[in-house]
Amino acid sequence: MQPAPTSSSGSVTAPRTPRLFWEDFPVGQVREFGAYHVTREAVLAFAREFDPQPFHLDDAAAEASLFERLAASGWHTCAMAMRMMCDGYLLESASLGSPGVEKLVWPAPVFPGDVLTMRSTVLESRPSASRPEIGLVRNRSEVLNQHGQVVLSMEGVGFFRKRDAGPPPS
Amino acid sequence: MQPAPTSSSGSVTAPRTPRLFWEDFPVGQVREFGAYHVTREAVLAFAREFDPQPFHLDDAAAEASLFERLAASGWHTCAMAMRMMCDGYLLESASLGSPGVEKLVWPAPVFPGDVLTMRSTVLESRPSASRPEIGLVRNRSEVLNQHGQVVLSMEGVGFFRKRDAGPPPS
Repeated sequence: MQPAPTSSSGSVTAPRTPRLFWEDFPVGQVREFGAYHVTREAVLAFAREFDPQPFHLDDAAAEASLFERLAASGWHTCAMAMRMMCDGYLLESASLGSPGVEKLVWPAPVFPGDVLTMRSTVLESRPSASRPEIGLVRNRSEVLNQHGQVVLSMEGVGFFRKRDAGPPPS
Repeated sequence: MQPAPTSSSGSVTAPRTPRLFWEDFPVGQVREFGAYHVTREAVLAFAREFDPQPFHLDDAAAEASLFERLAASGWHTCAMAMRMMCDGYLLESASLGSPGVEKLVWPAPVFPGDVLTMRSTVLESRPSASRPEIGLVRNRSEVLNQHGQVVLSMEGVGFFRKRDAGPPPS
């Protein structure tokens, strides 16, 4: 099954039968996926709702800021990354969620008109100590713009069901 | 000037003359602010656009998951935290943005109907080595639900202009 195309319009995909389990994320694996088109309207809508700092809402204020142009909220970039990860592999997987993220940096701004892609590298993979049917995967996930600049990098942990663990927990 | 009330409806506040500068965030300072009312509609809308995993979109799938109930995307919680920080102090401040976040954890889920508040503690404060008009503040920011449970904790760095730095950079 192919992932659905990603857009900022919020299309919904139906739940899928998992194809990817914990065993399918070995250390060293690199996945590249996306693209996500960043529109001015989406940048402004996110900023109005969640991050109404002037440099995310107003061209003149942004020009006078360290960003130098209207820039997306860093949390918007995280949200767009999450959508790319969902469409790239998570919705095909037996993902059980994430406890958190380390080393989240925004090394360069995201601007309206940018086209973002992602690169995820598996750094660590181990069984859960307390839940034998579950495994843990630690990824470095990087978001790149159309110039190849990294605009977001983070190390996130995800829980996945093992392939032979039987039916989902209930 | 009082911060505008926070809601999930995305009201926009006009830019303000900064009242808070780098000097106003000394180490050990604790700020408590919020509240943010989490609606079912907002949880579903965010998930549809950015994190369409079944446990964020579908009651039955959520009940079968580790969350046990329909739960907000962790990135939605981050976005709601950002809004509370804006309304709580950032929009009154000479904030210049943030390079990143450490130790971001979601220790408990956020559910529709929750009322979130925040507690921010200044962990570190120092002048920028390269930009004499700028200072750096490192905060531990925690989001709590109405039961006093921490649902998000992170350590974020922010850049602020110093009080006597003169006009904003241009």
